[in-house]
Amino acid sequence: MKIAFIGMGTMGKPMALNLLKAGHQVTVHNRTREREETVVEAGAARANSPLEAAKGAEIIITCVSDSPDVEAIMVGENGVIEGAESGAIAIDMSTISPSVTRQIAAKLGDRGIVMLDAPISGGSEGAQKGTLSIMVGGEVSAFQKAYPAFEAMGKTITHVGAIGSGQITKAINQVIIAGTYWGIAEGMALGLKAGLDMEKVVQAVGGGAAGSWGLTNRSDNMIQNEYPLGFRVKFHRKDLNIALEAARELGVPLPIAAFVEQVETGLMTRGYGDEDVSNIARAVREQADI
Amino acid sequence: MKIAFIGMGTMGKPMALNLLKAGHQVTVHNRTREREETVVEAGAARANSPLEAAKGAEIIITCVSDSPDVEAIMVGENGVIEGAESGAIAIDMSTISPSVTRQIAAKLGDRGIVMLDAPISGGSEGAQKGTLSIMVGGEVSAFQKAYPAFEAMGKTITHVGAIGSGQITKAINQVIIAGTYWGIAEGMALGLKAGLDMEKVVQAVGGGAAGSWGLTNRSDNMIQNEYPLGFRVKFHRKDLNIALEAARELGVPLPIAAFVEQVETGLMTRGYGDEDVSNIARAVREQADI
Repeated sequence: MKIAFIGMGTMGKPMALNLLKAGHQVTVHNRTREREETVVEAGAARANSPLEAAKGAEIIITCVSDSPDVEAIMVGENGVIEGAESGAIAIDMSTISPSVTRQIAAKLGDRGIVMLDAPISGGSEGAQKGTLSIMVGGEVSAFQKAYPAFEAMGKTITHVGAIGSGQITKAINQVIIAGTYWGIAEGMALGLKAGLDMEKVVQAVGGGAAGSWGLTNRSDNMIQNEYPLGFRVKFHRKDLNIALEAARELGVPLPIAAFVEQVETGLMTRGYGDEDVSNIARAVREQADI
Repeated sequence: MKIAFIGMGTMGKPMALNLLKAGHQVTVHNRTREREETVVEAGAARANSPLEAAKGAEIIITCVSDSPDVEAIMVGENGVIEGAESGAIAIDMSTISPSVTRQIAAKLGDRGIVMLDAPISGGSEGAQKGTLSIMVGGEVSAFQKAYPAFEAMGKTITHVGAIGSGQITKAINQVIIAGTYWGIAEGMALGLKAGLDMEKVVQAVGGGAAGSWGLTNRSDNMIQNEYPLGFRVKFHRKDLNIALEAARELGVPLPIAAFVEQVETGLMTRGYGDEDVSNIARAVREQADI
């Protein structure tokens, strides 16, 4: 397929490379133009703007930082909306606000461009290996047309509902992580202060109802009080804010997600924003003087 | 081995039966005497008191409700301490306070009786099948001597540290469950209110960093708002109180465990105490009018 890919960041670049590897015809664009180079060397064309990238593409993918970026690229000046043909599919794979997503989709829809929201999880490793989880919202027929592109980038590809649903699913993912990681952090702090052999404790409780991906893969960070990447706490906090905003619009109170977001703000203030999000255990440990 | 087993409850009865099956010589006692009958029919001897049960036993096991019960059985009038021989091993498999455990162990130790604390998880199903997780605190030599008994009752048998450490490990287990389940409940509420296909959402996020035993096995309860057993919320709340008391003694603040304990108190007040602990999702759903 003819695919435009806008956003050559840590995630976008390897994702575009996987599209090339799968035999797609890829045109790339990035605000900082030098970041296009690796992918161009691997066989991609380059475009001067989102408008130009979108011309003649069957699928236009964005993978950037936040709601205003996606808005500017999709429906701003020299944006996708000015270049894409009617019938093209615009797919945003960033993590942004579900309601902003729906606004953008409405504007694109007026020009006959169908939008899917398809945020991802699985980190830069998943982007490189093509094993991302992709949570897709939007029309089923567009999802089916775009499936070969998703397949080149991800492993677990799930259509979850109407436009915006992918973003809400990503928000749910981050909310669950907040509670799960915090629960693990409290448990680890209790055991550390009591002087237990924490490796054995994790082994003892990990096989039962307390078990989780976080306990298996992040409790050691918390025990060592060292938080290599992973997923940056500053990005998790950005995503929690999206979740809290969406929840506020829907009228759903999320007290623990809000609490963890506040703790993450404190960690960022103190210069820990680029550590893995399991560093919320810092706050639990410190309050117990561990 | 010659084993005394005191406490023929939902857990104790099948555990004693598994000891018999493994070829051990078992004497049982229960405050309500009729509850001894099934196990006696299966080949156990019966004793009129903890004192009598303990006579001549190499291992004396208790599995009852709470700290005062264990205290009375182990070191009270007609208790284990009056019947057990020097060199016997007393094993408490209830979930009780770690500091009360250490006090009881000290009194038993004065008479040459070594104590292990060995709380369990895995539910009545695990007790029946002999697949319990057993978290053991106390002297390593006593742990090794008692190992054949543990092996007859459990699958994951872990020595985690000095006396009381088993109880702290169990407390950690329950603290982690509190945070994990609550995080899942917030995520489910957000998705339900947004009208997503929740089965697909669970599938989409379950394979990554948000994955857990609770998400796989209890999210459906939360989606249906029906909470069959499982593990009763009233027992989880009892265990959280033990954890909070131990944490207070150690100087470890556990804000989310404390929060969830308060929610569980409300659920009990309203008659939901016998539902599975995943019913904390009731509180999240109600606040969002779902």
